[in-house]
Amino acid sequence: MRVALAQMNPTVGDIAGNAARIIGWVHAARARGAQLVVFPELAVFGYPPKDLLLRQALVARNLAARDQVAAQCHGIAAVVGYVEREARGTGLSNAAAFCADGRVQARYAKRLLPTYDVFDETRYFTAGTAVQVVELGGDGTVRVGLTICEDLWNDEQFEGRRVYGLDPVEQTAVGGARWLINISASPFEAGKQHRREHIFAQQAREHRLRIIAVNQVGGNDDLLFDGASVVVEETGQVVARGPAFEEHLLFVDLSNPEPEALVSYPERVESIRRGLVLGTRDYVRKCGFSDVVLGLSGGIDSAVTAALAVEALGAEHVHGVAMPSRYSSAHSLDDARALADNLEIELRVVPIEGAHRAMEETVLPHFGDRAPDITEENIQARIRGNILMALSNKFGWLLLTTGNKSELGVGYCTLYGDMSGGLAVLSDVPKTAVYELARRINATAAEPCIPENSIRKPPSAELKENQCDQDTLPPYEMLDAILEQYVERERSVEEIVAGGFDRGVVERVARLVDHSEYKRRQAPVGLKVTSRAFGTGRRMPIAARCS
Amino acid sequence: MRVALAQMNPTVGDIAGNAARIIGWVHAARARGAQLVVFPELAVFGYPPKDLLLRQALVARNLAARDQVAAQCHGIAAVVGYVEREARGTGLSNAAAFCADGRVQARYAKRLLPTYDVFDETRYFTAGTAVQVVELGGDGTVRVGLTICEDLWNDEQFEGRRVYGLDPVEQTAVGGARWLINISASPFEAGKQHRREHIFAQQAREHRLRIIAVNQVGGNDDLLFDGASVVVEETGQVVARGPAFEEHLLFVDLSNPEPEALVSYPERVESIRRGLVLGTRDYVRKCGFSDVVLGLSGGIDSAVTAALAVEALGAEHVHGVAMPSRYSSAHSLDDARALADNLEIELRVVPIEGAHRAMEETVLPHFGDRAPDITEENIQARIRGNILMALSNKFGWLLLTTGNKSELGVGYCTLYGDMSGGLAVLSDVPKTAVYELARRINATAAEPCIPENSIRKPPSAELKENQCDQDTLPPYEMLDAILEQYVERERSVEEIVAGGFDRGVVERVARLVDHSEYKRRQAPVGLKVTSRAFGTGRRMPIAARCS
Repeated sequence: MRVALAQMNPTVGDIAGNAARIIGWVHAARARGAQLVVFPELAVFGYPPKDLLLRQALVARNLAARDQVAAQCHGIAAVVGYVEREARGTGLSNAAAFCADGRVQARYAKRLLPTYDVFDETRYFTAGTAVQVVELGGDGTVRVGLTICEDLWNDEQFEGRRVYGLDPVEQTAVGGARWLINISASPFEAGKQHRREHIFAQQAREHRLRIIAVNQVGGNDDLLFDGASVVVEETGQVVARGPAFEEHLLFVDLSNPEPEALVSYPERVESIRRGLVLGTRDYVRKCGFSDVVLGLSGGIDSAVTAALAVEALGAEHVHGVAMPSRYSSAHSLDDARALADNLEIELRVVPIEGAHRAMEETVLPHFGDRAPDITEENIQARIRGNILMALSNKFGWLLLTTGNKSELGVGYCTLYGDMSGGLAVLSDVPKTAVYELARRINATAAEPCIPENSIRKPPSAELKENQCDQDTLPPYEMLDAILEQYVERERSVEEIVAGGFDRGVVERVARLVDHSEYKRRQAPVGLKVTSRAFGTGRRMPIAARCS
Repeated sequence: MRVALAQMNPTVGDIAGNAARIIGWVHAARARGAQLVVFPELAVFGYPPKDLLLRQALVARNLAARDQVAAQCHGIAAVVGYVEREARGTGLSNAAAFCADGRVQARYAKRLLPTYDVFDETRYFTAGTAVQVVELGGDGTVRVGLTICEDLWNDEQFEGRRVYGLDPVEQTAVGGARWLINISASPFEAGKQHRREHIFAQQAREHRLRIIAVNQVGGNDDLLFDGASVVVEETGQVVARGPAFEEHLLFVDLSNPEPEALVSYPERVESIRRGLVLGTRDYVRKCGFSDVVLGLSGGIDSAVTAALAVEALGAEHVHGVAMPSRYSSAHSLDDARALADNLEIELRVVPIEGAHRAMEETVLPHFGDRAPDITEENIQARIRGNILMALSNKFGWLLLTTGNKSELGVGYCTLYGDMSGGLAVLSDVPKTAVYELARRINATAAEPCIPENSIRKPPSAELKENQCDQDTLPPYEMLDAILEQYVERERSVEEIVAGGFDRGVVERVARLVDHSEYKRRQAPVGLKVTSRAFGTGRRMPIAARCS
């Protein structure tokens, strides 16, 4: 039997557009001889739909679209994710439709609803209570169980979230299934592809099932979906694998799979890079923009952001702005120019001295005898934010923010200054990983595009004389190691200190993280590439004591 | 029997501080003859704890604090809300401890976990499965059932959220309870106090129970808790009522209650005013600030915000800043001065012309032949944002944002400009309600403090010549009516048009709301006073099609 895995890139809420694409792929799959085509979780609606699910008119349109898709399923069967509305009340379920002979033959409602990290599924959905096993014709009839994303992850002991006494996979196997279809919208994080295959192989072996897992692809706001759909035999062997980070219709002949022809996944740093490129492209385009603008300081964060933006959108759609001040070193502008030359992007130079002096004349008289402090630095950052937003507003360019996760973690950034922008490309990338990205980008280009000087020089905000990040922050290797434990793993100060870190440093970092929550609350959407990003998956109070 | 209802104002995460206050009130209640004292939901931790619940060290400290409280309960019983940790895995429950004779005698786990609007309880908690009825000694032994917040709201058909086949109140009554204790952290919204009493009375009559309901008080970020604890007899009669918006230890002699002495709740506009005052005071103080700063434009929004801030913090802690520009009318500064005089707050005048001209000289050359548009207006708003943040940074004053819900709904505000600030006092108050607040504030003062001219003149952002809000927006009465349906009720354009509104206007408002989601994502915390506020209870995608 020939099966097509349709790892599709939907736009959330664009029911008509998503349905048209699904129907196009149903026809394409049939034309190329597939007897079954499988689409991702909520393919009709796009994942995550969030509070658009409260818009009943959209839910109704999604049901109509499901029926339109089903009506096209002649000579081919399809499994399609959509939102089901229960007969009673306004309850919804996260559902899969098995479509054949021009209509919906069977429906399945997701049973395990993730409600942690970035997931809010019990906010919207009622859990299904039944297994669904359908019969698939073809070379020989086979019984196929339907599951959705989390249903297949119950053996995952990760963070103690296992639901005891309820294993949809086991129950589906007991229900007579030989194959298991799993449709998902499983967000990317570094290493996720290998983790998924490991879990799927375990499940396939344990329950003696062939698993056909189809994952959404594309960026939807902060979340990156990487596709990487797979077919896993009951031996645990992976026999088909869709590409990561690309929309793709993958065909597999299940009577004669070719495991030797498997694509391989990009390694860790490369996978982060490709995820960020996809996420940037999708956020910009799905928001209706074609071009982006960003400040180029000559430093590594803006250089890496610019390089990723060029990969995502093309050099002619990326506009760099250098905004030198009285504190900018000569190399800053040189490095920004070299970067722009290498990337072949436009560079505007907009010196801020005039605006800076005028703002000083405006506010300094109100400071009385207070000594200079961070205030004077923030003023400059906010002038730059104003300039960038003016160019954004005037030309319709989306402003990219260039800050990294380490800065955002400890609040080493200016609200309404360098935090301004529509998308924070690197906000889940720790500083040390930004360096890795820079080296990777340079290593894979014909000519290195990120100036070596931007990589080598000590990082500085250049907001006062001879400033250097490490004047006020611990070395980034140490800072990132502490942040990883405090933020990603929710370890306490005591636990981190017990791991061999200096108590004073750990306490200071923890305090900085907790006290800068108010800044992050107002940060732009940031692309998630780790197990725990700042943003929708980390919900902290502000007016609180945190330790 | 004499019972004390302890409507307490905890700080989220401040386990030591909250426990000390609980213990103080246990002693106070005993000293004044109470045999039972009841504290709100999660009193030990503060509600909502959000992702602080993932910090295991904090959860452990909360358990220890519960035991410290229990150890003080001699000669008095107490019901205290806290976070329970289940023996298996890391599962938590939202729990109540019944403490007497120096130890925890019984525990109850909340059964209905709200996961809608601002609530995320299934993200953190496992639902309890058992009723809990304890015996209370005293004048005569009585059987008392324990419930927590949502447990008592299952008859509420609102939005179809009823959980079928599970009514914790009914099961508790069947379990032999004569009294029902309900501890809650039930957020305020206009009209909520009456709605609560209506539901409690229904439940009391239906299940023939006396209900003792104790609610948290205080502002925690966006959420306002209003206290308004009540005792309802099984006839449905309210016999005791705690004050709204005040921390209070309310004593009731249940053998001889005095329903004629009930306090009455403030009417709608007054309740919004008092909620905003409480929320402002708590946010400012719980964040560690004493003073606030805000821009005074001479308009009604900033005038009302300033008046509320003075009520919350005292005039000496409120700093006004007028920032006239070339487009400011003469009355703007006059009205700001009159307001500051009336409120007896400091007023600084910081003209922006110099900074404005310098910024024009900096960026206009980069605009080529593009015509002036919203860009030039935003530049001015962002200069003002920069000035206010500079004063905030230099003097440690928290910046209050003055925008209202109507503006925020349609995006009639400048990101990093007038949207700058730590707290948006009016961001859930529609413009028409801002007028009501202004009139109410003036009517209740010895001398009206908000200049009549600020109330009467046509609203204007004054960012270009002869500008007026109604140049680009429909009249506020119409805009607010449409926003109420589109945002609060999630009605579709079709449904709103069917209600008699002009299709063109409704479509335009809906589009503006959907397209300005990116601004609201970066808005400061705003105080919630309606059934649906922008912020944590409304989770919309940005890169999406919404209609």
